[in-house]
Amino acid sequence: MQTEELTELAQQLRVDAVRATDAAGSGHATSSMSAADLVAVLFANHLRYNFDEPDHSGNDHLVLSKGHASPVLYAAYLAAGAITDEELLTFRARGSRLEGHPTPRLPWVDTATGSLGQGLPVGVGMALAGKRLDRTPYRVWVISGDSEMAEGSVWEAVEHAGTQNLDNLTVIVDVNRLGQRGPTRHGRDLNAYSRRLRAFGWHTIEVDGHDPHAVEMAYDEACSTVQKPTAILAATVKGKGVAAVADKEGFHGKPLKDPDAAIEELGGRRTLRVEVRKPAEAQASQPVRRGEPALPTFDKGDQVATRDAFGKTLAAFGDARGDIVALDGEVGDSTRAEMFSESHPERYFECYIAEQQLVAVAVGMQARGYVPFATTFAAFLTRAHDFIRMAAISRADIILVGSHAGVAIGQDGPSQMGVEDFAMMRAVHGSTVLCPCDANQTAQLVAAMADLKGIRYLRTNRGETEVIYGPDEEFPIGGSKTLRSGDDDRLTLVAAGTTVPEARKAADMLAAEGIAVRVIDLYSVKPVDAETLQKAAEDTGCLVSVEDHHSEGGLGDAVAEAFADGRAVPRLVRLAVNNLPGSASPEEQLRAAGIDAESVAAAARLLVEKGVVR
Amino acid sequence: MQTEELTELAQQLRVDAVRATDAAGSGHATSSMSAADLVAVLFANHLRYNFDEPDHSGNDHLVLSKGHASPVLYAAYLAAGAITDEELLTFRARGSRLEGHPTPRLPWVDTATGSLGQGLPVGVGMALAGKRLDRTPYRVWVISGDSEMAEGSVWEAVEHAGTQNLDNLTVIVDVNRLGQRGPTRHGRDLNAYSRRLRAFGWHTIEVDGHDPHAVEMAYDEACSTVQKPTAILAATVKGKGVAAVADKEGFHGKPLKDPDAAIEELGGRRTLRVEVRKPAEAQASQPVRRGEPALPTFDKGDQVATRDAFGKTLAAFGDARGDIVALDGEVGDSTRAEMFSESHPERYFECYIAEQQLVAVAVGMQARGYVPFATTFAAFLTRAHDFIRMAAISRADIILVGSHAGVAIGQDGPSQMGVEDFAMMRAVHGSTVLCPCDANQTAQLVAAMADLKGIRYLRTNRGETEVIYGPDEEFPIGGSKTLRSGDDDRLTLVAAGTTVPEARKAADMLAAEGIAVRVIDLYSVKPVDAETLQKAAEDTGCLVSVEDHHSEGGLGDAVAEAFADGRAVPRLVRLAVNNLPGSASPEEQLRAAGIDAESVAAAARLLVEKGVVR
Repeated sequence: MQTEELTELAQQLRVDAVRATDAAGSGHATSSMSAADLVAVLFANHLRYNFDEPDHSGNDHLVLSKGHASPVLYAAYLAAGAITDEELLTFRARGSRLEGHPTPRLPWVDTATGSLGQGLPVGVGMALAGKRLDRTPYRVWVISGDSEMAEGSVWEAVEHAGTQNLDNLTVIVDVNRLGQRGPTRHGRDLNAYSRRLRAFGWHTIEVDGHDPHAVEMAYDEACSTVQKPTAILAATVKGKGVAAVADKEGFHGKPLKDPDAAIEELGGRRTLRVEVRKPAEAQASQPVRRGEPALPTFDKGDQVATRDAFGKTLAAFGDARGDIVALDGEVGDSTRAEMFSESHPERYFECYIAEQQLVAVAVGMQARGYVPFATTFAAFLTRAHDFIRMAAISRADIILVGSHAGVAIGQDGPSQMGVEDFAMMRAVHGSTVLCPCDANQTAQLVAAMADLKGIRYLRTNRGETEVIYGPDEEFPIGGSKTLRSGDDDRLTLVAAGTTVPEARKAADMLAAEGIAVRVIDLYSVKPVDAETLQKAAEDTGCLVSVEDHHSEGGLGDAVAEAFADGRAVPRLVRLAVNNLPGSASPEEQLRAAGIDAESVAAAARLLVEKGVVR
Repeated sequence: MQTEELTELAQQLRVDAVRATDAAGSGHATSSMSAADLVAVLFANHLRYNFDEPDHSGNDHLVLSKGHASPVLYAAYLAAGAITDEELLTFRARGSRLEGHPTPRLPWVDTATGSLGQGLPVGVGMALAGKRLDRTPYRVWVISGDSEMAEGSVWEAVEHAGTQNLDNLTVIVDVNRLGQRGPTRHGRDLNAYSRRLRAFGWHTIEVDGHDPHAVEMAYDEACSTVQKPTAILAATVKGKGVAAVADKEGFHGKPLKDPDAAIEELGGRRTLRVEVRKPAEAQASQPVRRGEPALPTFDKGDQVATRDAFGKTLAAFGDARGDIVALDGEVGDSTRAEMFSESHPERYFECYIAEQQLVAVAVGMQARGYVPFATTFAAFLTRAHDFIRMAAISRADIILVGSHAGVAIGQDGPSQMGVEDFAMMRAVHGSTVLCPCDANQTAQLVAAMADLKGIRYLRTNRGETEVIYGPDEEFPIGGSKTLRSGDDDRLTLVAAGTTVPEARKAADMLAAEGIAVRVIDLYSVKPVDAETLQKAAEDTGCLVSVEDHHSEGGLGDAVAEAFADGRAVPRLVRLAVNNLPGSASPEEQLRAAGIDAESVAAAARLLVEKGVVR
């Protein structure tokens, strides 16, 4: 398309954005209007995309990081013939694929946006996949707002892309000067942005974002720049084209008051069609191996940390399957993810101490079909909570592994202790949460996780625990293991991870006193084995959960959920971490929190003495 | 102190760090050794601090962001006479104030560190307080590692400090080249860091971090730099002074293998004392007003959004009390925090779209005695989860307000919906979690929150709800309101926030069918009103929780906790958000999630029909 036609197309996108938001009665018209020329030129002359084959390996990837400007994206889909005008006007209606912020309910959307500052980090993941895994010349285009440049996650991504020389990545910053509440820090000072980006090793281009020819040239320059990612800083006007709102505060996130007048001012409706260039034929990419890994096995009675078992299993998976990638938050020696790097350095990605970028790389790579294991301390996954939340909305299939969970890590103290990871991960939509207590169980659960969908979380421990299961034991997701059971059990101890050995020891101590108790290893924290818990409740009448986690949202809550359907509930007791720990040995920590064997036995004894249990 | 003595002092700090980690059997000796000269010069010649009066308003603030280097800080405390050698050797032992990573159990530590990349953001909060609130010439010194410069939160802080001209802030980056797992991205390339920092408007100084005279000059230059914060990039050697570990990989986080040889190599034990300069006499700072606010009142039957009531109450607090500050994540028009800014612009801090920095400013300002309200969408507080977690470990007293909670926001879709905020906030140590359903209740709860300690969270809603309480009604923390109750109640609906009107409507519908149900407004989600819930259980035998939140970790869990002490448990049913919403109207969203009045009534009816309830 030539300049004149591009201008027309941009006006069409504006008109359609006005129409869509008007039909919806809500939505971000003015934020769409600033980006219209940028999107028009991209769709008309640069994007390579086959809308009939969204999974085509040669397709470019477009991430609208300023997801609230979805109307301009949907208007472009209409111009490209991917959706009908009728569908456009279902914007924000119940059941429509055209949500307020784009999600992968649309096949052309790789990742959900709407929480600002996430598009570029995820784009970095895709660009890394393109460069280092797919080795396919697709480009990644990210359209970002100027406000969201304030998010630290953007600068994690900028640093990563710059140092990784991701020249297949372009970010287009729609510098429209106005955030939601008011002016941004830098207004329309393009150099404020480009100066920062250049310091991080980026190529930058400053451009009038409403001059299609200039934008055209900038995109060309981005495509021909090697060894550096490119940022295009585009000066734009929020609400461009409609004087009543253009460059004015107070019109964020609203449809225009007089849409008919606005459409007239924009030159009326148009029905231009854009032929988006199709990608070159798919490269003859190497078929990805998907064999069966030879899982490591461990001898019963040995002392092995579950993090070690995880590292060995991950490495074994790397041998068998070419689609597995391991991502590290600069603690791979601790999480043991590093074991993967020794034999598969080309699929090991060091993300440094930048947990948001760590999870974003996982989301970006799974969009290209890889199975990413993103690993750091359980405590530090909280840094990426919003990215994990959004990953679920993105229908992303990723695996997160948090090591050094619980007070059991000991001397390092509370800043390093993950004692809220269950609460965070259980509350993620559609998540799976697993917590192994021994090495063979860890290997089996890692194997099971690899083939699940959605957000999967594995919690591992720093310290060693006894191997209690044989290597052939099976651990279905949603299952549990009853480790001790008898007809005269007076209560049931429910434990997971490090608290399993404590519960077993407690049961031994109680048995010696004539108090029989059942012990359940609830390794599948979500989904939970409701049936076994319900049976234990019927049999013993009282369940005592023991967890190295805060009492809210964790194992105790998982146990309670098994009875949340209106059935008769047993007596429930929660033993959990309610203190604020300092430094101390692992044993002292468990004792102080009241979750070591002695404390568990004491609690059980009290329940018996008080006649609470039968 | 002169250069020669400074060198001696630095060696002493190294020796004492070796001794402390040796005594503990764990800890970060080599990370302490790289920073020894930097700390020695600071304590000897620049820091102004009265160790006998940690609350002195003129004291400088020192944040050891690389908290794992705590041994060098504790060694400096020893040199300053603040602790004894005996206490130094309690490092990391149970009960010791000298934890693995510094926490405010030590009176000279303002904020806990150990989760990297948080020291500078919190330091920015303190520096802002110094410049804009206290107007006192204390300086804020942050000692940062080089690895943690990868954290996006650092760049949020860099941007904030640069644009706010915080010349009372100095960050000293200990560029020792080695992270935990291996080399950092930039090695000892000081210019890689300073180039980036300068682009953000900082003054930078590159220096040999083991040359006390050069460090001295750099600190002097930082103190005399106006209008810009200063970053000192110090080239150092990890493990400096002991050849066996110096500049070598594989020694992170470990005591030295041969401490005696190391101490000898370092020149043996020394017992130098440092006289840390005391601050000037406290400024005659204006007494902070602490009057009683005239809370806004609302008329029963009116439709008011709780976010509006929050904004008005916050503004009223601003009028009455000079210690209240309001912090915005660039959505103040939506959260209504903006109402505060109109009458108190000098105490309203725009933090832009940078939620980690938002919470960090709150933590920094509370360290100076202010009462910060940090406000954004409930969904986006997940971005700051790790900062909130660390704030609890810092014993920080802050208030967080999350608006636009739940699927009830409607068309904007899932990226904007806070449906995991209860799970996140309940699992924070010592937190208080409140969720008002009407405007008068909001005003009262905001008033109550202001005087609590710890991390307090208020959830507000976007849409309007009916004012059902009079302005004189009281809402104690840990209480609840029974809105409907009778002798023949067959079950109890437990709701909070937007689900309260739905539960009330459901109760009306059920009553019309001859099914009496109790309705409890559980506005205090944590602590929970166990007594009222237990009574309702005794009376009605079945509790049905109704929440606009995922089913994990929220209201249903709070209800279950009231029965987690081994007492008889009623039947519990959870109605919560289990679907992944798209765009739709608020009413459609509540219906789709099964938490609107009709769905609640249907669930209750089913329980009756099935004979589950009596």
